Amino acid sequence: MSTAPQPAAENLGILLPGMGAVGSTVIAGVLAIRAGLGQPIGSLTQMGRIRLGKRTEKRNPLIQDVVPLTSLDGLVFGGWDIFGGDMYDACQTAKVLDGNLLDQIKDELQAIKPFPGAFDPNFVKRLNGTFMKQGTRREMAEEVRKDIQKFKATHGLERAVMVNCCSTEIYIEPSDVHMSVESFEAGLDADDKRISPAMVYAYAAIKEGVAYANGTPSLAADIPALETLAHEYGVPTGGKDFKTGQTLMKTVLAPMFKARMLGVKGWFSTNILGNRDGEVLDEPENFKSKEKTKLGVLDNILQPELHPELYGDLYHKVRINYYPPRGDDKEGWDNIDIVGWLGYPMQIKVDFLCRDSILAAPIVLDLALFLDFASRCGKKGIQEWLSFYWKSPITAPSVYPEHDLFVQLSKLKNNLRHMVGEDLITHLGVEYYEDQ
Amino acid sequence: MSTAPQPAAENLGILLPGMGAVGSTVIAGVLAIRAGLGQPIGSLTQMGRIRLGKRTEKRNPLIQDVVPLTSLDGLVFGGWDIFGGDMYDACQTAKVLDGNLLDQIKDELQAIKPFPGAFDPNFVKRLNGTFMKQGTRREMAEEVRKDIQKFKATHGLERAVMVNCCSTEIYIEPSDVHMSVESFEAGLDADDKRISPAMVYAYAAIKEGVAYANGTPSLAADIPALETLAHEYGVPTGGKDFKTGQTLMKTVLAPMFKARMLGVKGWFSTNILGNRDGEVLDEPENFKSKEKTKLGVLDNILQPELHPELYGDLYHKVRINYYPPRGDDKEGWDNIDIVGWLGYPMQIKVDFLCRDSILAAPIVLDLALFLDFASRCGKKGIQEWLSFYWKSPITAPSVYPEHDLFVQLSKLKNNLRHMVGEDLITHLGVEYYEDQ
Amino acid sequence: MSTAPQPAAENLGILLPGMGAVGSTVIAGVLAIRAGLGQPIGSLTQMGRIRLGKRTEKRNPLIQDVVPLTSLDGLVFGGWDIFGGDMYDACQTAKVLDGNLLDQIKDELQAIKPFPGAFDPNFVKRLNGTFMKQGTRREMAEEVRKDIQKFKATHGLERAVMVNCCSTEIYIEPSDVHMSVESFEAGLDADDKRISPAMVYAYAAIKEGVAYANGTPSLAADIPALETLAHEYGVPTGGKDFKTGQTLMKTVLAPMFKARMLGVKGWFSTNILGNRDGEVLDEPENFKSKEKTKLGVLDNILQPELHPELYGDLYHKVRINYYPPRGDDKEGWDNIDIVGWLGYPMQIKVDFLCRDSILAAPIVLDLALFLDFASRCGKKGIQEWLSFYWKSPITAPSVYPEHDLFVQLSKLKNNLRHMVGEDLITHLGVEYYEDQ
Amino acid sequence: MSTAPQPAAENLGILLPGMGAVGSTVIAGVLAIRAGLGQPIGSLTQMGRIRLGKRTEKRNPLIQDVVPLTSLDGLVFGGWDIFGGDMYDACQTAKVLDGNLLDQIKDELQAIKPFPGAFDPNFVKRLNGTFMKQGTRREMAEEVRKDIQKFKATHGLERAVMVNCCSTEIYIEPSDVHMSVESFEAGLDADDKRISPAMVYAYAAIKEGVAYANGTPSLAADIPALETLAHEYGVPTGGKDFKTGQTLMKTVLAPMFKARMLGVKGWFSTNILGNRDGEVLDEPENFKSKEKTKLGVLDNILQPELHPELYGDLYHKVRINYYPPRGDDKEGWDNIDIVGWLGYPMQIKVDFLCRDSILAAPIVLDLALFLDFASRCGKKGIQEWLSFYWKSPITAPSVYPEHDLFVQLSKLKNNLRHMVGEDLITHLGVEYYEDQ
Repeated sequence: MSTAPQPAAENLGILLPGMGAVGSTVIAGVLAIRAGLGQPIGSLTQMGRIRLGKRTEKRNPLIQDVVPLTSLDGLVFGGWDIFGGDMYDACQTAKVLDGNLLDQIKDELQAIKPFPGAFDPNFVKRLNGTFMKQGTRREMAEEVRKDIQKFKATHGLERAVMVNCCSTEIYIEPSDVHMSVESFEAGLDADDKRISPAMVYAYAAIKEGVAYANGTPSLAADIPALETLAHEYGVPTGGKDFKTGQTLMKTVLAPMFKARMLGVKGWFSTNILGNRDGEVLDEPENFKSKEKTKLGVLDNILQPELHPELYGDLYHKVRINYYPPRGDDKEGWDNIDIVGWLGYPMQIKVDFLCRDSILAAPIVLDLALFLDFASRCGKKGIQEWLSFYWKSPITAPSVYPEHDLFVQLSKLKNNLRHMVGEDLITHLGVEYYEDQ
Repeated sequence: MSTAPQPAAENLGILLPGMGAVGSTVIAGVLAIRAGLGQPIGSLTQMGRIRLGKRTEKRNPLIQDVVPLTSLDGLVFGGWDIFGGDMYDACQTAKVLDGNLLDQIKDELQAIKPFPGAFDPNFVKRLNGTFMKQGTRREMAEEVRKDIQKFKATHGLERAVMVNCCSTEIYIEPSDVHMSVESFEAGLDADDKRISPAMVYAYAAIKEGVAYANGTPSLAADIPALETLAHEYGVPTGGKDFKTGQTLMKTVLAPMFKARMLGVKGWFSTNILGNRDGEVLDEPENFKSKEKTKLGVLDNILQPELHPELYGDLYHKVRINYYPPRGDDKEGWDNIDIVGWLGYPMQIKVDFLCRDSILAAPIVLDLALFLDFASRCGKKGIQEWLSFYWKSPITAPSVYPEHDLFVQLSKLKNNLRHMVGEDLITHLGVEYYEDQ
Repeated sequence: MSTAPQPAAENLGILLPGMGAVGSTVIAGVLAIRAGLGQPIGSLTQMGRIRLGKRTEKRNPLIQDVVPLTSLDGLVFGGWDIFGGDMYDACQTAKVLDGNLLDQIKDELQAIKPFPGAFDPNFVKRLNGTFMKQGTRREMAEEVRKDIQKFKATHGLERAVMVNCCSTEIYIEPSDVHMSVESFEAGLDADDKRISPAMVYAYAAIKEGVAYANGTPSLAADIPALETLAHEYGVPTGGKDFKTGQTLMKTVLAPMFKARMLGVKGWFSTNILGNRDGEVLDEPENFKSKEKTKLGVLDNILQPELHPELYGDLYHKVRINYYPPRGDDKEGWDNIDIVGWLGYPMQIKVDFLCRDSILAAPIVLDLALFLDFASRCGKKGIQEWLSFYWKSPITAPSVYPEHDLFVQLSKLKNNLRHMVGEDLITHLGVEYYEDQ
Repeated sequence: MSTAPQPAAENLGILLPGMGAVGSTVIAGVLAIRAGLGQPIGSLTQMGRIRLGKRTEKRNPLIQDVVPLTSLDGLVFGGWDIFGGDMYDACQTAKVLDGNLLDQIKDELQAIKPFPGAFDPNFVKRLNGTFMKQGTRREMAEEVRKDIQKFKATHGLERAVMVNCCSTEIYIEPSDVHMSVESFEAGLDADDKRISPAMVYAYAAIKEGVAYANGTPSLAADIPALETLAHEYGVPTGGKDFKTGQTLMKTVLAPMFKARMLGVKGWFSTNILGNRDGEVLDEPENFKSKEKTKLGVLDNILQPELHPELYGDLYHKVRINYYPPRGDDKEGWDNIDIVGWLGYPMQIKVDFLCRDSILAAPIVLDLALFLDFASRCGKKGIQEWLSFYWKSPITAPSVYPEHDLFVQLSKLKNNLRHMVGEDLITHLGVEYYEDQ
């Protein structure tokens, strides 16, 4: 069982492997918000409220007034990147945020510089890093650990969280080297090519007692070796793959079709985006990892095994197209072929003109704060109650993941209520109709 | 408290004021399904499953295997219409279902004929009925009661449910005549023009102990006089306005924005449809009733009073356009202007090429079966647990309505679980992570 | 017949009744372009080329290298507005152009100030001007003439063009006061309320020998009185209603359906925009003028009288919705129901996320330069060869207007070729296949 | 020069290599139209009118009343297919036309059976034919010639036209075997694998004096060997690749951007379709041929070499996705990033819910009739005046192709006017403004 949450008196370090578009947007955003230059829109920890008690009580406090999270003023940022440069440079390259805004926080941004990144070009095609650690997997892992120690010492921090914001790595299946702590550590020593940079970071975090979240579909802390290690070291983990544009939409619409027992014959999703992420995902091997997390969503929500006549023939296709004219402004177009009463077909088209990093940034912030809170509550290993944030939520082996955004929200909020000792909400509501 | 549900041994009458596109589609659909010519897609009572117990138990029975509902074979249809003609004619006029299908159930359709409708042209502009009851409100009400009695006697029925499928009436505010049973009955006697045909039907249903649901935005059983009467006569009621195309989408997308704390600056919704409903709603006075139920949805879900910085300035506009080329194939186009991290704007466009009556038909069926079940459970008055089906759910005065489709689904399913003695589901799920 | 074009040695004044979003965008744009801060994209006179001779000759000079137009450096701007303020203020209010850009041409913008506007609130609902001429129609007309004289004198100009960029006036039909020069001038003297401010400006322009173009659907120089006067005074005129977003699209798609003999059953067009134009057009009386010019387009292109089986039943609906979240960023959504081989239906949806003033600004520039050129060629009265720019092209009474954008382009370019003594192009092209 | 057109007294054979979805739709359509069961919508030859003389003359006869084309009653259909089966079967497989319609012309459809197809699986991946000619290229070619002779003899025909409606072959570049009649005929004898089935058909047609059109992007009559042969045998040819859905739209919108001097930064086109064509094009090698004809369009229309600042950076991407839920109902979604005044970006999205074969069928008919007319006029070799129908119009080597649909239409109509001795139309129109 969870122990009672401790107040978050000390500052918290947030360490980002990958300080590109998403990373620099979250950092610049927090600095801007602290300076009164913007609002943390999209962040549940900063702006969200939680209903407590009955509807008639009208108790809807801010989550941060009920759950003892670290405040934005207590956050210190650091990380790793393979392109060097400070956060002002990174923001300029990413072209996500307005130049006027960046100029107002330029000094602070320039003060934040990455450590050299752990990298292996075989895991991310099409990127040529210029600022990288050298040496074996073991050497890279130890260097990352030293970076963490140094970062904490420099900033006088007791606690830190790591959120993986790197580019998507190629798809790989877990193999024997990933199966136990022993084989994994032997693999590090032997510089085993099946150990990815993402795993190196996750390993270092866990060994340093740093909570770990994986914003990408890459295989990382979700291998048996690192799951065991997380439990041993009492480290909470979360993953994987931030749920932002099109998949966010999918985990909202698919539950509606299911709720209303409408059939789905086909779902065609295409994306156009022009940032580095788009360039990396234009490479089929990288895309395969992403396709995996994107495709799994529908099956899990719609449960074709229970509803073969509605979802048994669903043809699901996902495409990502590199399209430079858009930069970070991703556009997702979905065509959905649904079926109603007596089999009559209908169509839905959704065009989502979104912004990749703008949607991802508040998720990084929320995950860091919630995982730190989980850590202070004594939780360890996978935190399923944070499924809300993931395209591909990791769970205990005994249970299937919940992909439905609203089940995930219910899970998140009831877990928060549970952790702070409030009643769970079931929406039964029979008490308002007493005479029945 | 509810009494234990009784098995549904006897047949059930479903009486529809308004046997046009929606009414004829539900009737022809049930006949076709009984004949093995189609599937009841879109119906929770026929195809829906309900999770019981923990995820690890893998118990997902059909709702109808757990809740003792009347089977399709036990349904008998009747109703009222102002255009006369049998259900085969009505299907031909509506042009919703395929001619080949209709020909296979022609005899059964031709055997179902409406009683003359209760009507007042001041309440529905642009329609000129040809098959109507004459006389005062009181006389119309008594005639509707006799129709019900005759229908039950003819078909040997013990139980019936009424679902209002008429055209939308003009918008009116409740006034003194609607406030008590006494004033209402005096109004019937005096043929008070503020009593609408929809209220006449609802009154007759309640007096006959027939459960009542209102598929339109018209003011009907939701006036104090009839709410009191429903409790006196032990009749469950439900309303109002079937939640089908665009509003269904709205109650799915708005909760997502809220869940993710994304701001909404504007929401523009336009509809094009070419059926009689479109023609009636092209008249501003009729549209006002519909606009009311359509506009209320967002405020309730987004709670701008709690989140003024996110939803305080939302500009919400809804348009319905009569567009004959489409007939019953309604198209809803939504443009949504949302706001993310630091105020950056994004857009979502949803184009829903739906079919009005195809989406509404299974709702009529589900409501009839669930209200009958509620009736057999001894429930009376408004059934908030059926909010899932309504654009404008009616609630006890002490509580606000829930518009979020997923809160509504949770409410519906936990109420079903509660009624059949199963554990409520909270999605807490801490038990799968015991060692934490 | 046209006389030979004269070189444009002198500067040219461009006078804009209405210096709001469109007016300030064209002025700021020309200043920015002169300062090397942008390109005149969208302007045929600045960037367009014209093919001369046979395809094999590969002669594609810039139009401005062949036709002696005034250069951007020779333009001087002035005008009238009912809100006062200089062009820097107007740009700030309009929020069309980027603040950084405006700051670089701030001094020049601030130096351009409107004369007080001629106005009558009965002709434009919802606007409350603060900077207006007082007095009768006659007094206002004479004052506008004096403004023109003063403007020319101040800037040492020989020539000027007037382009009406005011808000749309309410729809009116021409009546006796508009029928002859005599009745019109008597009406001015008598302050006849049927004479609109737009007519007052047009009258003043013509009397001053200033070429006149009408960017709005308001009734102005296209009344018999002013058409006669334009011929008397040797003044070329053009109109009416700039063809920008949705109608531009319509005059491109409709010709395609016609070219391919595809039927059209329905065309539903809706617009959302949040600028002053949107606010004014939300008023039904103002919208009626706009609806008139928007609806006429399809009939003229599709010729249902010649093709009743293809276009005889076309249901055409146009809606404009005021939607403040967008400001000047207009969005037009079109749904088109077309019909092919054997009557099979198909659909096209076009979503045009445009910018109202950005599309209109280069049209103002082109019209001013081409009308001035026409004037120097000795042309007078309506210039049908400029139909390319108008939603509702005015023609000689003997002929119907050409709405097809490509017929209009052919007309424009063949007229230019004709004026400069080049061969007309017919695309016959048999000469490349000599041996046939 | 053309000789005067002869009246089309005799019947005309239309021979289709490939009698699948498109072929069976055109045949069934003509039979249905002859039986009064439908209209030839989409066909210029059947429903189109042509303006003759001045606008004031109001002469707009039907094209077929001016140009002596063969009537529908005079058409006889035949062809080749690799799947055998009669045209009733082919229509059933294609699922394009309504079953009720087909049943009314069943006998006629069943009477039309293909000859065995000439095929080489290396040229069309993913298809496994069951009804094919055996032997070398030479043997296949001679057999096709005999089929033609037999077809003409059986039906007592003097004249025939061949329109290639086969699946798209893989992309190949012309090589030496294609360069002269001699090398080509030697290649046939040697069964040279670089000679495709499409070329075999084209060769046979030309040798039989049968006009030839190529509805696919495959390399066929557009190789020097066959172009020479067509001139020798006096056979007109046309090609290539029917311009139907998305490319049709492109050749309409791109000319508008060009006409208005609007820049284009990016154009992303994606298609979903579920018919055999979709399946074949899902194969990259087959797609390459199609991509070639689809991509060329924009460059030719926009002329980036003349307008580098507007079109020099255009990023153009075309995707075709096999998506079985749609069958023959193709959907094309285009996103276009355009640029206006001072470089401000705008977007256009076009969603075209079309029907592949419904759009192609009338093109087959028109091409057959116009090519036959060209043949009777003594024309030979490529017929550029029919560019209107092609995604990739073939021209004389001395000139570039015209892709702009409206230039193509002007060319088509002025050529018709020319052939029947009417004045060409230039849209100059100065005569209506005599006094200028």
